[in-house]
Amino acid sequence: MSPSSDGPDFSRGDGLIPAIAQDATSGDVLMMAYMNAESYAETLATGRAVYFSRSRGKLWRKGEESGHVQIVEGVFVDCDADTILLKVKQVGDAACHTGYRSCFYRQVTADGLKEVGHRVFDPATVYKKP
Amino acid sequence: MSPSSDGPDFSRGDGLIPAIAQDATSGDVLMMAYMNAESYAETLATGRAVYFSRSRGKLWRKGEESGHVQIVEGVFVDCDADTILLKVKQVGDAACHTGYRSCFYRQVTADGLKEVGHRVFDPATVYKKP
Repeated sequence: MSPSSDGPDFSRGDGLIPAIAQDATSGDVLMMAYMNAESYAETLATGRAVYFSRSRGKLWRKGEESGHVQIVEGVFVDCDADTILLKVKQVGDAACHTGYRSCFYRQVTADGLKEVGHRVFDPATVYKKP
Repeated sequence: MSPSSDGPDFSRGDGLIPAIAQDATSGDVLMMAYMNAESYAETLATGRAVYFSRSRGKLWRKGEESGHVQIVEGVFVDCDADTILLKVKQVGDAACHTGYRSCFYRQVTADGLKEVGHRVFDPATVYKKP
C-alpha cells in the first residue's frame, strides 16, 4: 500500500509536512504548524493535536503549557498527501500564543498590517515566566 | 520597518512560505500551496492567487489553464509572518486539479482514507491533453 493510500506521506522533504488546524464549528483557520510521522501518530492515538516544533526540535503537544489543547474531530489529507487538515475543538477558544483566537489575526492592507482578530487572553497570565 | 510589520517574511527558509486558500463564503479550506515574494506581489497586484510551483520551479497562476482562478478577497499573515491565509472566491467552484472542491477531500478513518468531498468537474474535460 502506498503511503498516500492510507495517510499522509512523510517521505517527502525532511519528514515534516504542514498541518492546518481549523475550528470544526466556526470554520476559522486557527494556525498552521508542522507534523512528523511521530507527532501524527500521537495525534491519532490521543485525539489531541501534536505538532513538531521546528524551533525546539521536538514534539509539541499543543496546549501542554497553556491548557489550550486542540481536540481533534477530523483529519484530512490533500490530493498529494503532503498536507494535513485537522478539524479541531479549540479548548480555551484561542489557538495563538499571542492570545488571539487565530494566528491569522492580521490582515494585509494598503496601510500595512491591521489587527482584525479577537484577543481571548493575555499571554502574560497564561504563560508563567520562571 | 521589519518584514513582519507590513507583510509576510520571505527571508526564512528557502524563500517559499505556505499559503492556505480558504473559501471566503463557506469557510472551506480549499488548498495549501507555496508563495515566494514574486508570487505574493503579483497576487496583491492582480487580486488573483498566484503561487510558486515547487515541482515546476516557476510561478503558478492558479486557474490559468482550467479557468478556475481564485479571486482574492482578503490576505492575512500569521503571528510569525511565515504563513499566509488567503480568503478567496473560487471560480468554477473547484480548487483541486482532481475536480474536487477542496484538495482535502479525503478523511483519515480507521479503514484508511475515505473520500468525503464533493467532485465538481471531471479533470479529463478541463485539462486538455496535447
